[in-house]
Amino acid sequence: MSERWGRFYGIGVGPGDPELMTLKAVRVLERVPVVCYPQSTAGEGSMALAIASGAVSLAGKELVPFPFSMSQPHTTDTWQGALGRVLERLAEGMDCAFLTEGDPLLYSTFVYVYEHLRRHHPQVSLEVVPGVSSVTAAAARAGVPLAAGRERIALLPALYHPQDIGPCLESSDTLVLLKVNRMLDAVRRELEARGLVDRAVLVRRATLPEEQVLCGPEALDGRVRDYFSVLIVRR
Amino acid sequence: MSERWGRFYGIGVGPGDPELMTLKAVRVLERVPVVCYPQSTAGEGSMALAIASGAVSLAGKELVPFPFSMSQPHTTDTWQGALGRVLERLAEGMDCAFLTEGDPLLYSTFVYVYEHLRRHHPQVSLEVVPGVSSVTAAAARAGVPLAAGRERIALLPALYHPQDIGPCLESSDTLVLLKVNRMLDAVRRELEARGLVDRAVLVRRATLPEEQVLCGPEALDGRVRDYFSVLIVRR
Repeated sequence: MSERWGRFYGIGVGPGDPELMTLKAVRVLERVPVVCYPQSTAGEGSMALAIASGAVSLAGKELVPFPFSMSQPHTTDTWQGALGRVLERLAEGMDCAFLTEGDPLLYSTFVYVYEHLRRHHPQVSLEVVPGVSSVTAAAARAGVPLAAGRERIALLPALYHPQDIGPCLESSDTLVLLKVNRMLDAVRRELEARGLVDRAVLVRRATLPEEQVLCGPEALDGRVRDYFSVLIVRR
Repeated sequence: MSERWGRFYGIGVGPGDPELMTLKAVRVLERVPVVCYPQSTAGEGSMALAIASGAVSLAGKELVPFPFSMSQPHTTDTWQGALGRVLERLAEGMDCAFLTEGDPLLYSTFVYVYEHLRRHHPQVSLEVVPGVSSVTAAAARAGVPLAAGRERIALLPALYHPQDIGPCLESSDTLVLLKVNRMLDAVRRELEARGLVDRAVLVRRATLPEEQVLCGPEALDGRVRDYFSVLIVRR
């Protein structure tokens, strides 16, 4: 047991292109001996780990997968096991980094780890390294400003708030929808009712090789349904 | 006149700490011969230029300031003069980069340049390199998640929409206010009416040496009023 606990970093690795990692993310990752990453229990591997590996060699580091499902991310035994292993390393004085796609505090599974550590392990010093979010990356790839001057933005995970889509189109200048792949029909109806179909842009996996950008009716007709999509409607 | 026009890059240099620039921003800036930057007509210099200079040597590059005021950024003669100079370089085949604090498409003066070029100079190829926004940086420094799971976010420039602050507190889980320095009293009243004063966090100049983080009543009492502040209220 070391006298000093290690530091726990939440590292945003950006939306997909490893070049969109920050200098700081790279520097911290080069230095830490332990790297944690979220791994979907659906068996899709870890996009965050793939992104980080594109800019930093992780050879020789201890890799700790944190399994998560969409529902309850931190109740499984394997999740608790991963956390226990990281706490051991921190107690030994080793710094650990937790990788997240995009930004660590914007719809990331890291938020649960962060809040858990802050509540139950206040002796651990925490640092969040912000990253480029998939929202601004999608806007960049689509060539759609998110907001200028006086404009207002609403951000919704569409899957959980279909009833908010219409009101948010009225009360904001730009509506950004995440988790939209199963809600495209509902979105299309709301946009049709307001003559806004032509303002829709769907960006799938922004900045990754499989990126697609679809505009207007094509964004909404379901030809692309992907969990990692962002739909932007700027009025 | 070259046969090929240069490319015009919008480069997000992040919120302040030069280490929060992306690898791509650095690589593009190292390569381009012409670097444009917004310069406040209030004579405060250019924060974007200062950030970029912290990670990349700009020696030997042609620097083109774009003057802007809060009101009409692209109607002045000096603005048009700067644009004309950049168009000349682009026509000569030189690539140009326009620096912006945070992200280029999120409340940035770059949006006006971008839309102007797209409309009036379609021969110019445009590329936006997204950056870490001051919003996610403020959340990181304050240790406040912006959203997890099902949560909804509203983003308002408070100065222009004081009447929306109350409704957005009701309809979203996290409210992010920009341009809040002159609206703190109005914000405080809305938060008091809902028992949410303790949920407020004000972050001034996140990730810069003069950064300040104020929580609860102190965030709202006006002891810090700075144009570059972000106020986050997560319910």
